[in-house]
Amino acid sequence: MTTVEEAEQIILARLQDYGTETLPFEQALGRVLAADIKADRDLPPFNRVTMDGIAITYQAIQQGVTSYHIKATQAAGEEPVNIGATGECIEIMTGAALSATLDTIIRYEDLDINNGVAKLLVADVKQGQNIHSKGKDKKQGDTVAAKDQLVTPAIISLAASVGEAALPVKKHPRVMIISSGDELVDVTDEPSGYQIRRSNNYTIKAVLTGHGLPADMLHIPDDPAVTKKQIGHCLQNYDVILLSGGISMGKFDYIPQALEDLEVKKLFHKVQQRPGKPFWFGRHQNGVLVFAFPGNPVATFMCLHRYFLPWLNATLGLPPQPPVYAQLAGNFTFTPQLQYFLQVKLTFTDQGVLSARPVEGNGSGDFANLADTDAFMELPLAKNEFKQGEVFKVHLFKPV
Amino acid sequence: MTTVEEAEQIILARLQDYGTETLPFEQALGRVLAADIKADRDLPPFNRVTMDGIAITYQAIQQGVTSYHIKATQAAGEEPVNIGATGECIEIMTGAALSATLDTIIRYEDLDINNGVAKLLVADVKQGQNIHSKGKDKKQGDTVAAKDQLVTPAIISLAASVGEAALPVKKHPRVMIISSGDELVDVTDEPSGYQIRRSNNYTIKAVLTGHGLPADMLHIPDDPAVTKKQIGHCLQNYDVILLSGGISMGKFDYIPQALEDLEVKKLFHKVQQRPGKPFWFGRHQNGVLVFAFPGNPVATFMCLHRYFLPWLNATLGLPPQPPVYAQLAGNFTFTPQLQYFLQVKLTFTDQGVLSARPVEGNGSGDFANLADTDAFMELPLAKNEFKQGEVFKVHLFKPV
Repeated sequence: MTTVEEAEQIILARLQDYGTETLPFEQALGRVLAADIKADRDLPPFNRVTMDGIAITYQAIQQGVTSYHIKATQAAGEEPVNIGATGECIEIMTGAALSATLDTIIRYEDLDINNGVAKLLVADVKQGQNIHSKGKDKKQGDTVAAKDQLVTPAIISLAASVGEAALPVKKHPRVMIISSGDELVDVTDEPSGYQIRRSNNYTIKAVLTGHGLPADMLHIPDDPAVTKKQIGHCLQNYDVILLSGGISMGKFDYIPQALEDLEVKKLFHKVQQRPGKPFWFGRHQNGVLVFAFPGNPVATFMCLHRYFLPWLNATLGLPPQPPVYAQLAGNFTFTPQLQYFLQVKLTFTDQGVLSARPVEGNGSGDFANLADTDAFMELPLAKNEFKQGEVFKVHLFKPV
Repeated sequence: MTTVEEAEQIILARLQDYGTETLPFEQALGRVLAADIKADRDLPPFNRVTMDGIAITYQAIQQGVTSYHIKATQAAGEEPVNIGATGECIEIMTGAALSATLDTIIRYEDLDINNGVAKLLVADVKQGQNIHSKGKDKKQGDTVAAKDQLVTPAIISLAASVGEAALPVKKHPRVMIISSGDELVDVTDEPSGYQIRRSNNYTIKAVLTGHGLPADMLHIPDDPAVTKKQIGHCLQNYDVILLSGGISMGKFDYIPQALEDLEVKKLFHKVQQRPGKPFWFGRHQNGVLVFAFPGNPVATFMCLHRYFLPWLNATLGLPPQPPVYAQLAGNFTFTPQLQYFLQVKLTFTDQGVLSARPVEGNGSGDFANLADTDAFMELPLAKNEFKQGEVFKVHLFKPV
């Protein structure tokens, strides 16, 4: 059986470039930057005053001048004002561009101003104080944000500052979410005593929405001809198909056959893991990838986070996320020869250790449990006993 | 001067109820649930088959029966089929509702099926195996998701399962983001040599967007009459005003006066912190809150995460987030009598420890640095020397 690591490698070997598009910079939030953002000017673009007060020359301080005649007042956004003589100063505001004739700012708190004369109340003055020097953060042409990273609010801020009103970002793959099974009715329908409502498709969609990825949804009945026709249509119109259910050994699981008939090449079927053992993954020769998750909600949820999202990040060009490690806060035993993904609740100890408390549900059908947990802890296959204090990787599905 | 803790307490004492609204459940993602979600039926609603195979009675196993006549086949979503005699079985699929006459499932892998007879290949059979029992996860009427929590994908899944096609959520406060200062030009404008482009308003908006909170934006010129008029209008039409800039000691900082004229009561001005010392907070008698952040981008960004977002969560009814602690990965010295918020880059060690590497920028004007860091580490006021290995609270602005 395919191991978790093998499954991951097979999936991550199928990266594709879906191209780029240019968006108004505000709409680029959460997308992957497709080109470096460069400084159009030095940052700051001028010697920027950082305190309200007066601007003087340090030379005057060295000459022992302690009272300065206020020649003019300069607000932020106004043209820099020069002084004419050493004993003069400019009353100046935070954010103003300093004249080349001035090099030091004394803040109001350290001044006594009367009749147009500012008197120093302090002796300790440093040359260049309270000035954010031109180009100190970045030089014109420097990269302020490199491509292949998520556009965060900080990058929105940088884009605004350098005048990048439109940002090139990676295009998303077109994603279709397919549910199947005649036992599933719509959310607004009243199920019979032997039916349940569809939920996996909505869960997948919600997770993708949380990652900024739009997706369409389709429900397929348990009918081989319809299954084949609908999946065939999706193979023509989407880049990725996410299926949930219909891939087990059941007599009415028509999906594996339909995929085979449609020439989607199986790259693996069944992974040595719990939940999610029946996970199927394949690729059509036209490049469409098919992630067929098991029908059980926890299995689908786990596979989505463990396999699909890392693939999505990688295909969009993001570097692999560094692993998150947590310390098990209780003993746990798992004997089957499967890699177990344990649901855990995370907290930080006051020593900065991420602590993972196991929260056992009632198996892979129990999604009620998912709402109370934060992550799956990936327990190594080679062991059966997992002791309190041992450290393993976790895959977060809620922010900490 | 107001300490960080005092400022936090003053802000968190001004919570308000902005009411509730009902949304189609998919659109409730990321909102705060305003009522418990209850199970409309048991979960699972029937004895649910979890493996494809045959359904038998355990009594037959006890009687030593190893071959079973397949009476019928039952797919998921079909009415439960009874057997007529102990030696009979039903071929049954994952997700099917088990008849009350049956209590044990043997999976295909453990069977040899020929000519309508299923022969057991295993001796070890447990009563009730491969069945997810009716009501095991939740009983009808049980709360499956309690109110006053964020609607996550797992909760979307639960809502779908119990048929809650519309969810009541907390209404957002109406938020206006105001920037000010004549030195600021629009992103699409070419700034003169002594102007810069507006960015703080976009940063605030992007952070709020990331938290699902819509907001409007307004830029006010350095003109006392216009400032007063515009803020007055906002006080009538919004619940929260987020200002950046214009609150220092500068001659053209008309905002404090305008707020005073408009009867916004100052609750504090200046916090013993860096960045963000000039932070101003007040409340109008009609309930509108005014968070006036300093103009420096890093200060605004810090105050937004340290003060506004916790207020937002609290006012929407979310419980306080448990603190995140990280271990300092280098020595750091800070001598001013201010509580310092150090920008850090976070990683997890393979021991599960959150490690925080200080990334020093060029002061509160240097937003270029923010794109490369993950959190602010809140260094205690009482100390000046912070050693590698010491543990302090961090406020994340990027997910780990």
